[in-house]
Amino acid sequence: MIYADNAATTRMSETAIQTMTSLMNENWGNPSSLYVHGQKAKEALEKAREEIASVIGANAREILFTSGGSEADNQIILSAAGLGEKNGKKHIISSAFEHHAVLHTLKKLEREGFEITLLDVHENGIVDPSQVEDAIRDDTCLVTIMYANNEIGTIQPIRKIGEICRRKHVLFHTDAVQAIGHIPVDVAADNIDLLSASAHKFHGPKGVGFLYAKKGIRLQSLIEGGAQERGLRAGTENVPGIAAMAAALKEAQEGMETAAAHQKKMRDKLIEGLKQIPHCALNGDAARRLPGNVNFCFEGIEGESLLLLLDDKGICASSGSACTSGSLDPSHVLLAIGRVHDVAHGSLRLSIGETITEEEADYIIRSVREVVEYLRGFSPIWRDLMSGKKEFIL
Amino acid sequence: MIYADNAATTRMSETAIQTMTSLMNENWGNPSSLYVHGQKAKEALEKAREEIASVIGANAREILFTSGGSEADNQIILSAAGLGEKNGKKHIISSAFEHHAVLHTLKKLEREGFEITLLDVHENGIVDPSQVEDAIRDDTCLVTIMYANNEIGTIQPIRKIGEICRRKHVLFHTDAVQAIGHIPVDVAADNIDLLSASAHKFHGPKGVGFLYAKKGIRLQSLIEGGAQERGLRAGTENVPGIAAMAAALKEAQEGMETAAAHQKKMRDKLIEGLKQIPHCALNGDAARRLPGNVNFCFEGIEGESLLLLLDDKGICASSGSACTSGSLDPSHVLLAIGRVHDVAHGSLRLSIGETITEEEADYIIRSVREVVEYLRGFSPIWRDLMSGKKEFIL
Repeated sequence: MIYADNAATTRMSETAIQTMTSLMNENWGNPSSLYVHGQKAKEALEKAREEIASVIGANAREILFTSGGSEADNQIILSAAGLGEKNGKKHIISSAFEHHAVLHTLKKLEREGFEITLLDVHENGIVDPSQVEDAIRDDTCLVTIMYANNEIGTIQPIRKIGEICRRKHVLFHTDAVQAIGHIPVDVAADNIDLLSASAHKFHGPKGVGFLYAKKGIRLQSLIEGGAQERGLRAGTENVPGIAAMAAALKEAQEGMETAAAHQKKMRDKLIEGLKQIPHCALNGDAARRLPGNVNFCFEGIEGESLLLLLDDKGICASSGSACTSGSLDPSHVLLAIGRVHDVAHGSLRLSIGETITEEEADYIIRSVREVVEYLRGFSPIWRDLMSGKKEFIL
Repeated sequence: MIYADNAATTRMSETAIQTMTSLMNENWGNPSSLYVHGQKAKEALEKAREEIASVIGANAREILFTSGGSEADNQIILSAAGLGEKNGKKHIISSAFEHHAVLHTLKKLEREGFEITLLDVHENGIVDPSQVEDAIRDDTCLVTIMYANNEIGTIQPIRKIGEICRRKHVLFHTDAVQAIGHIPVDVAADNIDLLSASAHKFHGPKGVGFLYAKKGIRLQSLIEGGAQERGLRAGTENVPGIAAMAAALKEAQEGMETAAAHQKKMRDKLIEGLKQIPHCALNGDAARRLPGNVNFCFEGIEGESLLLLLDDKGICASSGSACTSGSLDPSHVLLAIGRVHDVAHGSLRLSIGETITEEEADYIIRSVREVVEYLRGFSPIWRDLMSGKKEFIL
C-alpha cells in the first residue's frame, strides 16, 4: 500500500504508540485524583502541555486540550464571538475555503445575528493580507484564516494577517490543523491569538487535539461540567492520548527539516510528472504549498472513480477532504479558487508522507496517467470535449 | 497499590488495550476515506456501534460517539432544550445531586431563560418517581436523572421514572456513566429516551464515550464541521478508542454477574467493617447502590487528609468526585442528601473493582480505622465534640 492521504489522517508514529500504551498500562490514574497514582497522571498531562507549548512558542498555560481540531475551532470561534458581542462587535472575517469546522460554526453565528464576511480566495489559493485589511470594520471581533488549506495545501500569509489584526485590535485565529508538525508555526512570531490543532494529522492519535489562546483571552466552555482544564473544558483528561500527541509533535518538529526537504522533492516530482497528462491543472500555488501536498484537476473524469481505480493499484488518495467524502457536491475549496463544477469534480489530492520513495512517486505518476486515460476512454464528457461539442477549460 | 477509586477512572482491560493498539498499528485509516484502508476503519467503527447498541438494547443507528460522558450530557441536554423551545416548552426537571456536566449545562440554560426544577433527594440518596410525576408541568420538555450517583452509588428508579415520562410525553435522559458496564441497563425496558456513557468508567480508554438517542429524537450538533456521525458530531472518528470502548463494554457485560456478586460481597464486608468506627455513617441506601460503591462520612475529620494518609498506606480512594477535587466546597451530593457542611467534609468514597480480594478489603478496613483514629487525635473539632462543646451529629 502506498499511503498518499496524510491530510486525511496519518499513521501513528512508533513513539506515539509506545507513549500511549505505556500510559494506558501503567500511568492510567485520573489526573484530578489526590493520591500519587493520580498525580503521576497529572504530571504526564502537564509535561505534555509544556512540550506542546514549547514547540509552538507558547506558554503552557495558553494550551488547552480538546478532542480534536473541530472541537478547538468551535470553542475558539464561539468564544471570540461571545467576547465580541459583549463589546457590541458582531462582525467576523474569514475565507471561502476554510474547513467546515470553521464555516459551519460561522453559519451558526450568522443565524444568531452575526455578520460574516467570507473573503474570496485568489486563483492561486492564497488570501491577500490587503483583503483582510480592507474587510476589517469597527465592529469586527475576529479574523479566522487557516494556516494551510486542507485540500490544496496552500500556505497563507499568516504572519502578515496577524500583524494587521494586531494593529487593528482584532482577534486573530488560525486553524493550523494541516500546518502544525509539517511547517514551522510560532504563535509569537506569527502574531497569532488563537490556534487549533489536531494530533492525528501529525502522527499522533485520533480523538485528541489542542488549542492555543493567548494569555488574557477569556475562552468560554463548549463542554460544561467538571473543573478540568481550569474550568474551560470538562471531562476526564485523555492523558494517554495527550501525552502521545506531545510525543508525536516533538518528533515531528525535530524531524521537520529533513522530512520537508524530502517531501518537497517528491511533491515537485509528482507535480512535474502529472502535469504531462493532457488537460489537467495543478490546484493552488506551486511553491507556497505544504511540502506534502499535490492537488490536480483532470478534465473529463470523476474524482471518485479515479480514487477507486487507484485503490485497486494500491494507492490511497483522496479527491479532497475526507470530512466531506460521501457528499456529491464538488469541493467548496476548488470552487472558491474558481474551478467550475465539471472540472472540480475531477480532482485528486495526494498528500504524501516523509517515507515516500522515488520509486513510489514514479509508480503513482504512472498509475494516475493510466487511470485517467482509461476513465476518459468511456467518459461522455470527454467524448464531447474531443468532438468539439464542448470546449476544453484546462 | 490497592485501587479503590474505580468511579474516578478504571484501569483499561487487556482486551481493550489490545484492540486499541491493533487498530493504531494496522487499521488506522480515516473511516470517511473511500479506499479499502479507510473502509476497513469504517467497518471497525460500525461494528463497535452495533456491539454497543446490542449491549444496551438499542439499535446501532441510535448510538452516537462522543469524546466522553460530559460531551454526551451537554449535547443531549442542549438538544432536548432546543426541541422543547420550538414547542414553547422551557421547563426541565433534574435532581440536586446530578453530575456537574448535567448541572452546569442546566445552569447555562437557566441563563437563557429556561426554568429548572432540581428535585430534592431523599436521605437515602434516591429520587422518588412520584417527585418526578408531581414536578412535570405542561411546559416540561425534559427530565434528566442519573442512573446511579457517582459519589454515593445509589441506583435510581429509572424504569419507573421513564414510565412516567413516557406517559406524560416528556423526554427522559439518564446520565448512565456510573451504571453502564456495572449493572444491567436496557434502554427499551428502562423507558430511556436519551442516555450518556463514558468508556473509561468501564475499563475502556479515556477520551471516548457515547450517547444513545431514541429513534426520532433529533439531536443538534455540539461540535460543528464535517459530516461524521450523520452530521451530528464533527471530527475524524477516534476509531481505535471507539473499538476499544466496545470491546471493554462487551467484556464488562459478559462478566457483569460474576463481578457484581463478588463486588457486592466485598462492598458489604467493607460497610460492615467501617460501620464499627464510632461516629460515622454510610452515605446512601445500603442495598440500592452500585456493587462497588462504599461511601462514608466520619465526624471530626477532613476527607482530604484521610485520602493522603490512605495513599501512604497504598490505598487509592477519593472523598467524592474526582471532577471537583481541588475545590474546597463540600460535595454537593452529600449536601443534597442532607449532610451538614462539617460532616460532608469528612467523606470517603471507596469504589472497588472486581479484582479486590478479602485480604485487601480487610486491609482497607484496618487502615481506614487507624487513619480516622489518628486524625481525630489532633482534630480541634473532635476535641470539641469529645468535650461536649459541640454536639455529635452522627
